[in-house]
Amino acid sequence: MTAPRILPDPSDPRLTRRVQGTDQAGQPVDLSVVEERPLTIFLNRQEIVTAMTIGDYPDYLALGFLRNQGMLRDNDQVTAVDYDDELETVVVRTARETSYEDKVQKKTRTSGCAVGTVFGDMMEGLERVTLPDAPLRSSWLYALARQINTMPSLYLEAGAIHGTVLCREDKPLVYMEDVGRHNAVDKIAGYLYRHGVGPADKILYTTGRLTSEMVIKTALMGIPALASRSGFTAWGVEIARQVGLTLIGRMRGQRFVCLSGEHRLIRDADPADQPDDPRGAGRKGATDD
Amino acid sequence: MTAPRILPDPSDPRLTRRVQGTDQAGQPVDLSVVEERPLTIFLNRQEIVTAMTIGDYPDYLALGFLRNQGMLRDNDQVTAVDYDDELETVVVRTARETSYEDKVQKKTRTSGCAVGTVFGDMMEGLERVTLPDAPLRSSWLYALARQINTMPSLYLEAGAIHGTVLCREDKPLVYMEDVGRHNAVDKIAGYLYRHGVGPADKILYTTGRLTSEMVIKTALMGIPALASRSGFTAWGVEIARQVGLTLIGRMRGQRFVCLSGEHRLIRDADPADQPDDPRGAGRKGATDD
Repeated sequence: MTAPRILPDPSDPRLTRRVQGTDQAGQPVDLSVVEERPLTIFLNRQEIVTAMTIGDYPDYLALGFLRNQGMLRDNDQVTAVDYDDELETVVVRTARETSYEDKVQKKTRTSGCAVGTVFGDMMEGLERVTLPDAPLRSSWLYALARQINTMPSLYLEAGAIHGTVLCREDKPLVYMEDVGRHNAVDKIAGYLYRHGVGPADKILYTTGRLTSEMVIKTALMGIPALASRSGFTAWGVEIARQVGLTLIGRMRGQRFVCLSGEHRLIRDADPADQPDDPRGAGRKGATDD
Repeated sequence: MTAPRILPDPSDPRLTRRVQGTDQAGQPVDLSVVEERPLTIFLNRQEIVTAMTIGDYPDYLALGFLRNQGMLRDNDQVTAVDYDDELETVVVRTARETSYEDKVQKKTRTSGCAVGTVFGDMMEGLERVTLPDAPLRSSWLYALARQINTMPSLYLEAGAIHGTVLCREDKPLVYMEDVGRHNAVDKIAGYLYRHGVGPADKILYTTGRLTSEMVIKTALMGIPALASRSGFTAWGVEIARQVGLTLIGRMRGQRFVCLSGEHRLIRDADPADQPDDPRGAGRKGATDD
């Protein structure tokens, strides 16, 4: 496999800034705070959307966003991805002429924090999705949570950021972070697309809630399992059951809840052997949204 | 003041659903889970956006969304707000003929969880904002956090939801919850608009992160102080300083950080007298996004 492994780089100076304030006693405090900047995504000559993002991997973000909106097709040939740091734009160019004027008119503002914008019909394309009946071991889930919660990240450095991690068995392969959780997911989608990585043996782990948008994006990417340390909405669970996605929520320490795909879940680890939630104890800036 | 006080109603059967799953030991669990459903907002004959929402207060949500997007003006006369439960639509009708075809074309996908969709230029209208130089007492902040974190809510009942609370001094007046944090804020804006409530002596408290969108919306509403138990982005802090908004982040137990408006903050409460964060201990479904 030639696709690179990507882990967070909390030392990247472009991703955080020092901010001064005062604490409850009036004492000066000096904090590391995540950046948030606009990035306008173009598909050929059409301006599609402006995303508020932390700013890393603009190429994956643009490709993944367009892919998850159905604007980049399987057989599309991407001829260039041009990022302009000063103009804060990224232009994806394809061999095929594209026009999505109508689609861009119809927008869905997805759930809360979870989401962002979806163009056209959110459920579009879901009926064509067939997810493989992949087994999921609880030992993998525990090992992934332990590694992801303790490895160096912007979350641990500065807080107020979301993470989404592409995993295989008990290994985190690509760990993307962003102020927008939907951006982190789109960067993963862009990575899969750019490197032609197959989704069938993958697991997606996210720090955010399991809303309808999150479940739909995971299914459209062809990934058969989605796990989160956070909660879920009723509609998120309903869609996961419809499309046959294994859904695991509220992963904290030894605890978790399986909401869909019970028959694929192999409980091969003793919950009593698992340590308490390390992230809960070490929470810093709080990512409560 | 004739405007009603609004607090969460966790017993409303339309807002949660029982969902069955299995826990880490394979035992069945039965959970109360928040609903998430589409609501399409129309302004007169134009379809503006579909929001994923928990579903309460569709009239405030529609009015507040249109108001925060600059599509409803100060002098607009709203002739009707028609909500159709079955069609999942809400239509706001005005005496003035409206047309926002151009504006709806240009979208900003706001930060992560924080945001949702903003039409047109996000910073539009900010240069006209003058916020009153209102004092903010730390005793109010502590009293508000204590009340909001312990009063019955969907958050405490089911988790995976955000809250935004309109307050005056140490009193929570309107406590809105939603799967989308931007929806909760928009419902507050709709409430202010509908009842003609003045913003100058108000404080906005939110469970979510202080991103650029959150700061901009608060300033556009004319509210001079914004507080959160969560973190913040660098751009959120920068805009708060530009517009003169008092910004308080990371409110947990006795701790908080003042990031903007230090000269208005009166530290009249002894931090040592404050109890530990009750919500941190009682966290349920986790609203990590």
